[in-house]
Amino acid sequence: MQIVACPGFTAAGVAAGIKKNGRKDLGLIVCDPAASVAGLFTRNRVQAAPVRLDRERVRGGLCRAVIANSGNANCCTGDAGDRDARRMARAAAQAIQGAEEQVLVASTGVIGEPLPIEPIERALPGLAAALRPEGVADFAEAIMTTDRVPKAVSRQARIDGRPVTVTGVAKGAGMIRPDVATMLCFIMTDARVDAASLHALLAAGANRSFNRITVDGDTSTNDTILLMASGVSGAAVRTAEDRAQFQALLDQTMLALATWVVKDAEGANKLVQIEVRGAASDADAHRIADTVANSPLVKTALFGEDANWGRILAAAGRAGVAFDPSRVDVFIGAVQMVAGGVGCGKAVEAEAARVLKTDAFGIAIDLHMGPGRDAVYTCDFSIDYVKINADYRS
Amino acid sequence: MQIVACPGFTAAGVAAGIKKNGRKDLGLIVCDPAASVAGLFTRNRVQAAPVRLDRERVRGGLCRAVIANSGNANCCTGDAGDRDARRMARAAAQAIQGAEEQVLVASTGVIGEPLPIEPIERALPGLAAALRPEGVADFAEAIMTTDRVPKAVSRQARIDGRPVTVTGVAKGAGMIRPDVATMLCFIMTDARVDAASLHALLAAGANRSFNRITVDGDTSTNDTILLMASGVSGAAVRTAEDRAQFQALLDQTMLALATWVVKDAEGANKLVQIEVRGAASDADAHRIADTVANSPLVKTALFGEDANWGRILAAAGRAGVAFDPSRVDVFIGAVQMVAGGVGCGKAVEAEAARVLKTDAFGIAIDLHMGPGRDAVYTCDFSIDYVKINADYRS
Repeated sequence: MQIVACPGFTAAGVAAGIKKNGRKDLGLIVCDPAASVAGLFTRNRVQAAPVRLDRERVRGGLCRAVIANSGNANCCTGDAGDRDARRMARAAAQAIQGAEEQVLVASTGVIGEPLPIEPIERALPGLAAALRPEGVADFAEAIMTTDRVPKAVSRQARIDGRPVTVTGVAKGAGMIRPDVATMLCFIMTDARVDAASLHALLAAGANRSFNRITVDGDTSTNDTILLMASGVSGAAVRTAEDRAQFQALLDQTMLALATWVVKDAEGANKLVQIEVRGAASDADAHRIADTVANSPLVKTALFGEDANWGRILAAAGRAGVAFDPSRVDVFIGAVQMVAGGVGCGKAVEAEAARVLKTDAFGIAIDLHMGPGRDAVYTCDFSIDYVKINADYRS
Repeated sequence: MQIVACPGFTAAGVAAGIKKNGRKDLGLIVCDPAASVAGLFTRNRVQAAPVRLDRERVRGGLCRAVIANSGNANCCTGDAGDRDARRMARAAAQAIQGAEEQVLVASTGVIGEPLPIEPIERALPGLAAALRPEGVADFAEAIMTTDRVPKAVSRQARIDGRPVTVTGVAKGAGMIRPDVATMLCFIMTDARVDAASLHALLAAGANRSFNRITVDGDTSTNDTILLMASGVSGAAVRTAEDRAQFQALLDQTMLALATWVVKDAEGANKLVQIEVRGAASDADAHRIADTVANSPLVKTALFGEDANWGRILAAAGRAGVAFDPSRVDVFIGAVQMVAGGVGCGKAVEAEAARVLKTDAFGIAIDLHMGPGRDAVYTCDFSIDYVKINADYRS
């Protein structure tokens, strides 16, 4: 991991005993002094208790800490779940001597089981004692569920004449679809940005990254992205140029994390960008890209490294978007498979097979209708995905 | 198979050499004299050549024959595909000495490869010579792709004072989603019904059967349902009572075939009805049932026989329908898993596990909001589904 500790933040991760396997399952990020904050949350109608709490608290615009656990989603847990989310925040606030209403909470794991709140409360003093600038690596480990590797990314640039750091950490391996946050992601920066601007920057960044990925089309009940700005670099994001620079830095960080989530998805072997161009509008392009990216038949063909472009066209055709199939071109990598709606023959399939054997490539669909364009990142649908998800709770 | 030959129809199926494994791949149904006919076709924007031809010809209201092949979908095959579909109809017309424009065509199999028209033309005289009333069984075999068993169903009732038979045959194992026909299905009856009435009866029947099933959410480019009425029983469907009786007979036949398609789906082990009730409207109920029925996480949990109701609620929550999660009840079979949005504890999971081990059961979601209700049939998502679809063309 290429992580740079972000000035103004400390973090830690420990094993509190929530996960049965003894791995790290409780993480804490502390901002001292309080950072300005913006949040994006799942659009699922069923929302976990910590999501409901954060939605309310993030309106205050200030964040002193984030306490996050894996192993239990604290979702569909009723009033007890709401009480437990508040208890978790209170325990963190006490451990760091901060204001309770400035502590945000995140949970990820199994839905519908009571949150084991006592082990969390017991672990908090030790977790707070372990806080250090480089603790992001431990935090990243503590929020993992079926992720194969912890995910953290740093990017730096000069803004307002000063070096600025953006460090993000994310988890997510299944139940991933581009509809807001799609997993847990915590982004820290030492730039100085007010909460309202942060929200706009975060929303724009998410639209180019976490809202453009899919693993299985399922949207989690716990999706949360938080962006926290400590301001300790002294670099203020004020002018249009500053904003553009900071947005670029944020976009790079978020896209790196988002594509990493897809690449490390449950059972995934390949990161595939589905690009649709020549559509009547960007929205049309997105709808087709999203339908192709979520098609089980396309995704199993990717797993089988089979240049089955018929399935790509068939998925595009059911996206609910009008187009003329006899004008469509399809490319796998740089290899043109379909010209004017008709296959280019057996010879190109051998070329495409070479592309399909690699672990990252693009599929492009050109409708030749207009200027609309969009792209979605997806992965293959493997035997391991089924195994992992058939056995998840056992 | 409990098939009854339907008076007025003969059928046959032979191996024409389209499939590499030497199995039956060309089937013919002949109606003598011509039957009145109605058709439903895929809503996919990408439509196979035979679908385009049938859409046009079915408007004539009369059908002398249906010629169908498996092993090749004749889709994304350009102008040559259209010519081949017409050649296929012409060869059948010549073999049975019928009018070419009264011959309908259906193809299923791989997309994007040229239809091997010469073997089809060569096989047609032999196919016509093999026609017999009981030939439906051979026809059902000839249209199979990844189906594990041929599927044909007969139902009989007394209408207009006379015994009436409805015999249907279907194929379909993947690329199945409730958006019109979803596979190939040919239904014969000896009742006398005009083409316009037939269309209304067929559309109503499809809405209760083939539009209520899903395997993988993918809609094929070749979906076709044809309903042919020979009238040779002498029973005329004229009065409201006749219509209701005939509709019931048709519905039974279509629902038996549709659920059979799900039960025999690629890699499927379980037939599961997802019922949503207490919704604000039937349309809302359908949207939620469809989203749950297509969720890879729900379907892999079904494969794992895991009572993971959290995934059911999470899928319901992303259906784009407003509801109050704290009022929702969920049942697996007769076992209540969730009451008022909260899990009913570990004890019921053992009971639910017994239900999940069976090969057919229902999952019910009650929103407690209104009178809306709908149900969709789905299956589990297995390791074999991935294997079958990763290797389909190799």
